[in-house]
Amino acid sequence: MNHTTHEPRIHLPEGSPTLACVDIGGTKVAVSMADHRGVLGKVAEPTAKEGNNDALGRQIIRMIGESCALAGVPVDSVGSVGVSSCGPFVLNDGLVELAAPNICGGLAGKARGLPNDWMSALLEAPLRDAFKNVRVENDGVGALEAERRWGALKGVRNCAYVTWSTGIGMGLCVDGHILRGKNGNAGHGGHIFVSDNDDALCGCGMIGDVEALIAGNSIPRRFASQGYADASVLFTAARSGDQRAIDIIDSLCHVMGRALFNITALLDLQRISLGGSVFWHNQDYLLPRLQAFMHGKLPALTNGLEIVPAGLGERVGDFAALALVMK
Amino acid sequence: MNHTTHEPRIHLPEGSPTLACVDIGGTKVAVSMADHRGVLGKVAEPTAKEGNNDALGRQIIRMIGESCALAGVPVDSVGSVGVSSCGPFVLNDGLVELAAPNICGGLAGKARGLPNDWMSALLEAPLRDAFKNVRVENDGVGALEAERRWGALKGVRNCAYVTWSTGIGMGLCVDGHILRGKNGNAGHGGHIFVSDNDDALCGCGMIGDVEALIAGNSIPRRFASQGYADASVLFTAARSGDQRAIDIIDSLCHVMGRALFNITALLDLQRISLGGSVFWHNQDYLLPRLQAFMHGKLPALTNGLEIVPAGLGERVGDFAALALVMK
Repeated sequence: MNHTTHEPRIHLPEGSPTLACVDIGGTKVAVSMADHRGVLGKVAEPTAKEGNNDALGRQIIRMIGESCALAGVPVDSVGSVGVSSCGPFVLNDGLVELAAPNICGGLAGKARGLPNDWMSALLEAPLRDAFKNVRVENDGVGALEAERRWGALKGVRNCAYVTWSTGIGMGLCVDGHILRGKNGNAGHGGHIFVSDNDDALCGCGMIGDVEALIAGNSIPRRFASQGYADASVLFTAARSGDQRAIDIIDSLCHVMGRALFNITALLDLQRISLGGSVFWHNQDYLLPRLQAFMHGKLPALTNGLEIVPAGLGERVGDFAALALVMK
Repeated sequence: MNHTTHEPRIHLPEGSPTLACVDIGGTKVAVSMADHRGVLGKVAEPTAKEGNNDALGRQIIRMIGESCALAGVPVDSVGSVGVSSCGPFVLNDGLVELAAPNICGGLAGKARGLPNDWMSALLEAPLRDAFKNVRVENDGVGALEAERRWGALKGVRNCAYVTWSTGIGMGLCVDGHILRGKNGNAGHGGHIFVSDNDDALCGCGMIGDVEALIAGNSIPRRFASQGYADASVLFTAARSGDQRAIDIIDSLCHVMGRALFNITALLDLQRISLGGSVFWHNQDYLLPRLQAFMHGKLPALTNGLEIVPAGLGERVGDFAALALVMK
């Protein structure tokens, strides 16, 4: 397969303030700087999970300093900090804190073995103490902004970006307005229920939601006992004609198809851009099946709907934080 | 049960233009006028389904004339026309036409026995030829605007109105923005899939969507053979301890609970207002079950979510069209 992912051209005028780009995941934090030279000074570390619940905020501030040093710019040249983070969020005094069960031990219970008892991790408050302009959004919103600016959703007022990766996430835009919701958690579409299948436990603690059934980390949990150790093994088997693998992937497409249909019926979308490692490496196999699932269902809603691969391909996430703060 | 539905106070200054309020359903069209005296001159007729596909538009214009006569105001005093209509819509040159399978015979096929072969019914275009200010929205949006103005959703920026009636419909609001979508069809939440139950055919032609499983018109289709001729019989039986009826209603609440959870996960809502005849007449029975369904699921999203009865009670629909055009 030959996927051409175009590199977005970042046009920042010389002399404009440096933009700090922060990506927070459950396992890794990455920070880089963007200025007229492009994106540079990337540093990455495991997500801080020890100490007090300001550890993550302090880690990010330190990493911004390190990234600035690597990029050869002073920290006080940072004009804005964009943060694209895994969720869910809770708001405290209007400021985002993370309530992610893979980071906060107090939420997950001892079973997960996290080295802290946090109920939430401070995020926006410490960053606002250190920097003037800070924008924190969930990573679905960040990815959506990147696809709307540089990718497959340019100029589309009613659209979604859906990632089918280790987990399932979405960013949603209706009438040109990017949806955030009461705590900035809009787009948690991995956690909707579309089926009665209850053989699958999600990382969020629920049984049988979309993420539990089809996410990259669910495939080994559900199908390793049938000989499919991960998504790659499963798709390779299906491509070579293994009927059981084909049937399993059809069932995954049925779940994802329903999720895409549901957001279309609820939001009357024009275009859905799909990314994430599971989708991206198998788009030739998956895309026609997802499109076929939609075909003919409630035509007033699905006619004219386009389901397309992400314009930024595998690099959507790399530009999410930058998209949040670039003018 | 004693449900107090408060009558909204309509404050229109004397001398302000008359507002024409038009409600379009699959079986009935209702038109009334609002001015400083209140809402008056109500006329209602079966929805026009014969002749050319401008029949509905001509019917509404004629009924506005009749309503004006009854209210004692000249037609040229009508300043704005608000239309709250069943959907789905399609846009033609940016103007709303109806593509409702219970009105347009060309969509439904001969099976439904409609006396026309329309693929759509003209709506916004003829009204705009006759009146200067026209706003057409799907009835979920109209009801949502009414609940936000006079009902249980006042001042709530992230909210939904959900009707559980003959059909299932929704109006959605995120970040203070009422969602419309590419053709104004946002909120078609009766047609999402939340379960694998496929014993139920929806009026939209799909099998097993929420409306097919739990709408008022689905209850006789699914359960008459078990002795429950309609929703009223079913709930009466459950209240008197009939275990089979109790189990059936639990299964209906499971489907509606999932629909409410799904919109909460997707949109990060603060409050959901529930109305519609099935809900309203059984809210003491249904509300605690729906609230219990939500409890504990993905707490960052459901904590603080309120599920409440519609503030306008059974009269939400009566004020939908007015809410669309009242300043």
